[in-house]
Parts: sequence; structure tokens; C-alpha cells
Amino acid sequence: MRLKDIDSPADLKRVPVDELQGIADELRGYIIDTLSTHPGHLASSLGVVELTVALHYVFNTPDDRLVWDVGHQAYAHKILTGRRERFSTIRTYGGLSGFPKRSESEYDAFGTGHSSTSVSAALGMATASRLQGDVHRNHIAVIGDGALTGGEAFEALNNVGQSRANVLIVLNDNGISIDKAVGGLDEYLTRLTASRRYNRLKAEVWRKLDGSAGGRRHDRSLGFFQRMTNMAKTMFVGGSNLFESLGIRYFGPIDGHNLPQLVDMLGRLRDLEGPKLLHIVTTKGKGLRQAEQNPVVYHAPGRYDAHTGKQIATAVDGCPPRYQEVFGHTLVELAEQNPAIVGITPAMATGCSLNLMMERMPDRTFDVGIAEQHAVTFSAGLAAAGMLPFCNIYSSFAQRAYDQIIHDVALQRLPVVFCLDRAGLVGDDGPTHHGLFDLAALRPVPNLTVCAPMDEHELRNMMYTAQLPEGGPWVIRYPRGASEHADWQTPFETLAVGRGRCLREGRGEVAIVTLGTVGNDALRVADEVDAAMYDMRFLKPLDTGLLDEIAARGYRRIVTVEDGVRLGGFGEAVVDYFAARHPEVVQACRILAIPDEFVTHGPVAQLKHDCRIDADAIREEVRV
Amino acid sequence: MRLKDIDSPADLKRVPVDELQGIADELRGYIIDTLSTHPGHLASSLGVVELTVALHYVFNTPDDRLVWDVGHQAYAHKILTGRRERFSTIRTYGGLSGFPKRSESEYDAFGTGHSSTSVSAALGMATASRLQGDVHRNHIAVIGDGALTGGEAFEALNNVGQSRANVLIVLNDNGISIDKAVGGLDEYLTRLTASRRYNRLKAEVWRKLDGSAGGRRHDRSLGFFQRMTNMAKTMFVGGSNLFESLGIRYFGPIDGHNLPQLVDMLGRLRDLEGPKLLHIVTTKGKGLRQAEQNPVVYHAPGRYDAHTGKQIATAVDGCPPRYQEVFGHTLVELAEQNPAIVGITPAMATGCSLNLMMERMPDRTFDVGIAEQHAVTFSAGLAAAGMLPFCNIYSSFAQRAYDQIIHDVALQRLPVVFCLDRAGLVGDDGPTHHGLFDLAALRPVPNLTVCAPMDEHELRNMMYTAQLPEGGPWVIRYPRGASEHADWQTPFETLAVGRGRCLREGRGEVAIVTLGTVGNDALRVADEVDAAMYDMRFLKPLDTGLLDEIAARGYRRIVTVEDGVRLGGFGEAVVDYFAARHPEVVQACRILAIPDEFVTHGPVAQLKHDCRIDADAIREEVRV
Repeated sequence: MRLKDIDSPADLKRVPVDELQGIADELRGYIIDTLSTHPGHLASSLGVVELTVALHYVFNTPDDRLVWDVGHQAYAHKILTGRRERFSTIRTYGGLSGFPKRSESEYDAFGTGHSSTSVSAALGMATASRLQGDVHRNHIAVIGDGALTGGEAFEALNNVGQSRANVLIVLNDNGISIDKAVGGLDEYLTRLTASRRYNRLKAEVWRKLDGSAGGRRHDRSLGFFQRMTNMAKTMFVGGSNLFESLGIRYFGPIDGHNLPQLVDMLGRLRDLEGPKLLHIVTTKGKGLRQAEQNPVVYHAPGRYDAHTGKQIATAVDGCPPRYQEVFGHTLVELAEQNPAIVGITPAMATGCSLNLMMERMPDRTFDVGIAEQHAVTFSAGLAAAGMLPFCNIYSSFAQRAYDQIIHDVALQRLPVVFCLDRAGLVGDDGPTHHGLFDLAALRPVPNLTVCAPMDEHELRNMMYTAQLPEGGPWVIRYPRGASEHADWQTPFETLAVGRGRCLREGRGEVAIVTLGTVGNDALRVADEVDAAMYDMRFLKPLDTGLLDEIAARGYRRIVTVEDGVRLGGFGEAVVDYFAARHPEVVQACRILAIPDEFVTHGPVAQLKHDCRIDADAIREEVRV
Repeated sequence: MRLKDIDSPADLKRVPVDELQGIADELRGYIIDTLSTHPGHLASSLGVVELTVALHYVFNTPDDRLVWDVGHQAYAHKILTGRRERFSTIRTYGGLSGFPKRSESEYDAFGTGHSSTSVSAALGMATASRLQGDVHRNHIAVIGDGALTGGEAFEALNNVGQSRANVLIVLNDNGISIDKAVGGLDEYLTRLTASRRYNRLKAEVWRKLDGSAGGRRHDRSLGFFQRMTNMAKTMFVGGSNLFESLGIRYFGPIDGHNLPQLVDMLGRLRDLEGPKLLHIVTTKGKGLRQAEQNPVVYHAPGRYDAHTGKQIATAVDGCPPRYQEVFGHTLVELAEQNPAIVGITPAMATGCSLNLMMERMPDRTFDVGIAEQHAVTFSAGLAAAGMLPFCNIYSSFAQRAYDQIIHDVALQRLPVVFCLDRAGLVGDDGPTHHGLFDLAALRPVPNLTVCAPMDEHELRNMMYTAQLPEGGPWVIRYPRGASEHADWQTPFETLAVGRGRCLREGRGEVAIVTLGTVGNDALRVADEVDAAMYDMRFLKPLDTGLLDEIAARGYRRIVTVEDGVRLGGFGEAVVDYFAARHPEVVQACRILAIPDEFVTHGPVAQLKHDCRIDADAIREEVRV
């Protein structure tokens, strides 16, 4: 049997156990080949190839429900569940999602994308099964050690232990959470697995425990677990264990690349009622040398040579840097001048370029792991004691810390500068990762200053201005990807808070009013049609003086543009002000913003077009 | 020395150790007396009287920074830190806040109100101290076992263990988190403390460890801790411990009402560098029999007899029930008819009246502890497997689960019915507890239905309609307190989704357009001035048909009223629609909503007046 013959888990189940590794090897090769030219999340998926094969081999999916935490590791799962031939469409417009998605397949029991939700979801489904009298259905959450540091995962562990629900948590321990995993928990897991006892276990336990037979009878398994538990008690942690403290039966750690062992263990656990956790140890990037050696870079490496694994460079000298690099270098510059500045990231040091400051000033930089809530309150604590934290969070992940931004920072007027990376449309990662709600959600929060740079010079100046005395709580949001100018490192200028600017006067018929980098498209259109162009810079405070001027000009058309949700967003703020003060100009207004729908994945330009916030849409609207 | 002589912790420090209990007794009596006529959070504060005395006795506050998690237990702290004479103003308009507040006192190192933030904040402040070279400053987080189940607390524990920061976590273990604490963690703590070993320790340990001497020299303490640790290792948990797993030195459990013991232990821990946790066991409501026996009711008992402890009944037969009771009874009615319905609350079963369903259908009701994120994703999991969850969360606490509402429920169109209790102005609890952001934050989320009942009949009908097939993700938000009608239990009616209603035609000059219970004030004003009155019922979908009709009527004034933030809220939604479709009516519009400031504590009527959303404000605005 070959991979090409497997169109569903039913096909997989016909493969003899000792041939499963062959399937896994093919699967791994297929992923490496495909992603070399169709970029995606590589290293995570490579790490769980054997686990994926074993889960679909042992469990009766989709009746048994499988939840992949975060979900970017579910590529092998997609290939084995009827999506092999469409796999090269992954993350492309109209193609497969890069994450599990309920509407895409019945095998995707629960959609993911953000971290640390899988145990909660699996517990919910398992509880439903119990209430429905469906006691034999299994519910499996696969969660990495990085995702386990997210608070929601702990909330779920605290609940799952007390339930009688049939939940199996597979802890996929690879020591990596996009960046290196951090925190006491990860050290604990390392101690568990680094011990000589574990290594001895790997070699001996299966013989001792007659593990090779793969028997599934209930009484036999009971004996197995009793012996296993007894061994664990004496061998690992002196009779206690973090998970068992919470009432969850703990098994492992076992080698997550040993297929017969995984199949055997999962088979036994399948028949064990109640909540339990299997700790497996895997190598992120398994099977591709470069990815194993550098799993942070190969988390999502872009294009690479499938044979050598070498990344194919796309950066060109003299091109504008990414906003991320501008943020990272600028923060270092500012921190060198202002000793109060500290940098905080929840697990995205490389992605947001905080690693640049981390290398230079390790004491003043904090990667707190996947823990957005803690990142914000920790920043508030730093600020309350006189520091000036720059807390960088991806826009959509900041939704996790909405309460803390309101309650711990804004209410107390603490000077935390939130840099919301990946704001607006992010492209291939799709609806879970677009940063579209930030402006509308943060606009009603008192005491916040909320701004968005039109280019990287503005980003630098906003960061500079935010760290000046009397800055207070600030939010700067900017997109993923390339900025505008090659000469990005301009001297700092202090911006007037809450002041926009007129970039172009035009012939007086039409004005375009923008916030953020969408202003660049708008400026090009303004040049074409000789329109006025205003970059408002600040959503909050809104530059009502400039809006008064705009109203006084008597434009026949005023078009606002933003890359955030329309409802409650920037355009509405402008129109709301006009309605209150200059009702006569309201009928000239048109708002271009993200409509009231979740936006799919695909190239940013395509999505902008679909959402009617691109140059074409602006061109149409400025025609009076 | 008497309590009346203590105006600051410096005064307290002059009291001999053996007289401290006398101060504590006075303090407890003062709290009981005062709160009997000035209602507040009683039981929590009574439980930590000795701890509060010991902390201010041992530590050098405010230089040493003390963070009270949640903060409703900080009454003794307020009394001892210069606010004794103003204590009877607590939670009154213009008086002391019911929570620690940085602007109120330098002793309130960090404002709290929501749960599980203290360790993050203390770690932030401790990290700042370390960076500032201030190595001797102490940072103390006092957190209850209930608050410890909130995910953010775990995120913080995961970080604190790896830091070198001078953080002392005092785990105040009383087995209660407003309602009974739940989850594996609480069971674990119970096992720790219920063991005979703990009871033996209480009696013997201080003798064995020469604990009575209270010596503070570093070398002496080191020996103490070594012996203590050795004892703990053999006595409690077989050498491991949940907190030590995370890299935090664990001490305890000790009796939290034994002042000499607390003083001694805290004195030793003060001189121990790095992160550590002291586990103390206290009785919530300590010193008032009724409160000890029924800490859930006496969490915030209202008025009571200071001598007997008996609550003074305020409910009167024939009066309208509270919205909470209507929710609770209605959910039971619906659940009896619809077997798919389940009820979920994060630790507010009594407060929101889910306890009514819990008593009748314990298997279908879930108190997940203080864990809003888990509550939402758990509900999503239940819904994904065919159940129909009613997830009741206080509006301001739902901010904790903003991401999960978007990502796990709305994006997947899962039929979860969110009942947001305590929406609008809550009164005495103030800015951390007002539910003012819900409408603006949820309005931009695609796929949600968002509504607010004007009275309890509407609440019942909205709950009924939400659970019908094709309901999808729903949000129903309603306020704390008494509803409108004594005959509340009317038969269910299906509401047309996204349809408002005209309650009064008026003489055609003025229209009032409202969402939620503010409509009742509006209707009274409409009667007075013969205005039209429209109850929109739904924020989303907005009844644009009805708005078209309103626009067509040619009113000279259209006043919108809501008890949520103005920016991005209901009024703006109405004006935004008019601006797009009926720009000619925009100048007739006036929006009454919460202005862009945090709202203080005080009587709801007073706050409504200050925010200009009461009948007086409506009266002023309808004058054309």
C-alpha cells in the first residue's frame, strides 16, 4: 500500500502495522516536496507525521473527534483525510485552509488557528457525547508544549481532570512554540524527559510491559496501566506529577516518532475511560535536516529546495525592509536612548523582530511564551513601577488580552506602548489571523491613543513619540510585510498627538481620508485623479480640527479607507463626527472598509480587492 | 494601642506581636459593623484580616508593593493604610472604591477588580525593581484559590518560576471563589491541606522548627527553610508539588488566622530572594458565624444585623423579580422543553442564577470556575457536538473571552447563546465592573446576533428565540437588578430576528430610539411629551427597515439612547445607517450614550445622570 492509495483513514487501517512507517515516510516526503514550492507551516507538520498516522490508524475518525491545537501542524491530517490531491492548494486563494476548518472536512472536528483552545473544545465535545449517551466516542486534543503555556489550556486542564469525560490529551512536546518555548512548565517537561530514567524507559519499557503485543482487551490493558503507573511513580516524579495533581492520568513520555509504540499506546488509551494525557516527545522539523536544526526559521520557511532544504532567498538589496524589521531596529535605537524601555512579546520574538533587541539587551527583553493576557498585565506592572514597556502582539492575538488592555492598562493610564503587528489583512493564514477587529475594538476604550502609520517613517515617529513623557497608553498597529521606502532609517520626529496631515491638496472636488498603510494606494489614486489626500494618522484622538477643515472645503465626495472592519471603525468615526458637527457633508461620504464577514485566506492584494479597499475600489468611489 | 490609633502601617509596626490579634479583632469588628449598614464585600475581607495585619507589620509598604488579586478582600488593607475614617464611604458615590485603586492611595500598588492578574502585575513590578537595581524591594501578590484557576494566573506562574524576581505569592486558600471553587486544582489544594500531616504540622511544626523566635537573620532563615523544605518533601507530596514543578519554592500550608505564625513566616520569606509561594488556609467570613457557614451568600450580603449577622430582607412580595431570576427560571423552563440546552457559568452560578438549573439538572449545568476563556471554547465544543449552550458571563468579564467569542464561536457559526449579565452600569462596583464595552466590541463581529431586552418579557422571548433552530451565535445582554413587571412569567413568543418595534406613535415631531432597558425611561418621557418611541431590540442585525420608516416620518428630532459606550455603539450604528441611506435626517439625530471616559462607582441613577442617559437627559434632547 502506498500513500497514493490512501483516500481516507479507512484505507490507512488496511496497512499492516509494520508497514506504517513507510506510509509516514512517504507522507513526510510529500509534505517536504509540496511546501518547497507552496509555502506553509513546515516544521510543525513534519514533527507529527507519525502521530497523525497512528491517531487515524487507531481511532475511528471522524466519529472519534480529533482537535489539533493551533492547527498549523495538521497538514498530514489533511492529506490522510481525503485532501491529498488538493494539498498543493494549501493556503492559496480558494484552496485548502492552512488550519483545520469545520466547513472544509468532517474530519476537522473543530477549527483552530489561535493557540490553547483544543482541550476546552475536546472537553465540550466529550461532555456532549456523555450527555447524549454516546459513551464510546473518543475525543482527542493534540496540544504542543508551547500552546500548553496559554492560560486557556490550564483553565481546561483544571476542568478536564474533574470531569468524567472521555478526553485524551496528546501533549506533543518539542520544546518549541514557534520561538523556543519558555517558562517553568517547559523546564519541567524537559526535566521529565531528560532524565536517564526516561532514556532507560525508552529502551526497556516495552519489553517489560509486553507492549509489543498490542492487545486491546480491557482487562489486559488495566493490568498494563497499573504496571505503567507503578513504574511511572517510582521512575519519574516521585509519585506526583503536575497533570496528576489536576486529576488527569498521565502516561509517558514516549518517543513520538516510534510508530509501533504510538499505535500500541494509543490503542490501550482508547479503551481507558475518563480523562488522560499522553506525553510524547517529538522533533520539530523531523526528517529535514535544516528544519530540525533550525525549527524557528523552518516554522514557516517560505520556498526552499526540497532536496537540500536550503531556503530560497527572496529579499533583494535596496528594497524596503519589512515593517517587522523597522519595528525591531527602531526599538533598539529607542531603547539605547531611553533606559526605561523594555520589550515584551508573547512567543513571537522572531516574527515581530523583538529578537533584535533581545540579542542586544537580553535583560530588558521578555518572551513570556504564548500568554497574551500575562504579557499585557506584566507590561502594566512594569509600567506601574516606572518602566516603559513596548508590548508587541499580533493584532488578532491581542484579542486574547482585550480585558487586560482595558482593565490593567487603559483604566490606570499606564504608559504601555502596544505595537500590534499583523494588523489588517495578513493573507495566507486567513480568517483566524487577519487583524481586522483592533481598531473597532480599541476605539471605545478611554485613555488610549490609537494610531496607524502610513509608512515606516511614520512607524518610527509614532514609536518615538509614544515613549516621550506624557505618552500614556498607546496602540500602534501596522501590517505584515514590506514597507514603502528603502531609506527607512530617517531621524526621529515628534508627532503631534491626534493630528493628521494633508498630503495632497488636489483640485478640490474629491478628498480621500485614510488611516494606515492603505494610504499608499490612496495617494496613488489621488495623484491620478488630482484628489485631495489626508492621512489621519490617529484614530484616537481623532483630528477633529482637520475634519472641520475637510468639511469646510465643500468636497463633492469624501472617501474614507481603512483595512479594518467597517462597523465601529475609522470611517464610521469620521462620518459620526461629520454627522454631529457638519451634517451637510455626510451625503458626500463613502466608507471603504472590511465588510461584515469573515475574510478567507489568499494573497493580500486579492483579498483587498474582494473587500473593496484597494486602489480599484478607491478609483470607483472617487468618481463623482 | 487600639485600632483608632493606627493611621498607617508605621503605627501598626509599633504594636508588640502578642497584641496584634487584638488589633485584628477590632479590625474585624469594625468591618462587620460598618458593612452591616454600608453594604460591600464582606466574607472575603473577613477571611484575610490576620493576613493583612501581618503583611503590613512585616513588609515595608508602600515601598514594598502589595497587589490584592480581584481586590474585594482589601477592606482591612484600606483601613490600615490611612482610610479608616473614610471607610464607611466605601462603594458610595464620591467615596472609597470597593477595590484597590492607584489614584486613591500609594498603598494600592496596582488596581484590581477582575481576577487572576496579581501575579503578572507583581512580576512586572519586581522585574522593574531588578532592572532599576532595587534588589531589596519586595513584591507580594495575594491570590485566592478561586482566582488561581483563571488562565492568566497560570501564565504568570509559568513565567514567575523562571524569573529571578523577588515575588512572594500568598495563596489564600479558602475553597471558595464567590461560588464554591471548582476544578482539579482546588481538589489538589484540598488534598494538600486535608491530610493528617497538615493537621499534625499545624501543631508541631513551629516547635520543631524553632519558629516562635521570629529571627530574621539570613543564615538562620536558610537553615529554617532547608528543614521546612525537607519536612514538606517527606510530609506532603512525596517530593514534588505543582508549584515547585513550575520552579516556584513552595511553603505551607499554614493557618492563615494564626498571627504570630504568619508574622514569623512572612518575616523569613521577606529575606528569601527569588520567587516563592506561601500557601495559607483561611476561613472565608471568619468571625461572623453566618458568613462562615454561608460564604457564598455573605460574599456581598447587603445589609445585615451586625450583632446577629442576620440579613435584612429587602425583597417585597409582588415586586418585579431581578433580571437574574428571570434568566434562571426561564432557562430551566427552556431546558425542560429542549434537551439540547446546557448551562455554563464561569464561577457566577449564584450571581447569575444558573444555580436554579444546576439544582434541577446538575448534569446539564457546568460551573467551570473563574475561566471565561475556557467557558466560551467549552461551550463552542458542546455546540459543535450538537448541544445548545447558554453561556452566562458578566459583561465586563466577557472581555476576557473576546477572542474566543470571535474565533471559536462566531467564525464557526456555532449555536452558543451568550447571556451577558451585569451589562450597562452596575453601580457600586464601579469602572472595573460596568458592562459598557459589550455592544461596541461585539457589533463588528460577523455572524453574531446581538440583542438587548427592554424588559423581562423580552428577555424571555429573546432566550426562547435564540434556542430555536437556525439561531446561530447569539448575544443577549441585560442589566443587574430589578426588572419591570411583577407578572413576568408570560408565555414565550418567537421574535423576528433583527426586527425592532414601535411602542408609541406620538404626534410626529420627535422620536426616541432605544436599545435595552433604557427604553423604559425613554417610554416614560415619550408619554410625557407625546413623542414616538422605538425599541430596536437588536443591535445586530439592525432593523434597517424600521430605520427607513423612521427616516420617512420626517421627525425634527431623533434621539437614540443606550447604556453602553458611545464610540462604535448603538447610536452610532443608527446614525451610520442614516448617513449612508438617509443623509437628510442625520442633522435631526442626537446620541445619548456613555461618553469616552471610565465611569466611577455610585448609585446607578446617579451615574446615569452623570453620563446623560437618564430621563432628564432624554427630556432635554427631545426639546426641539
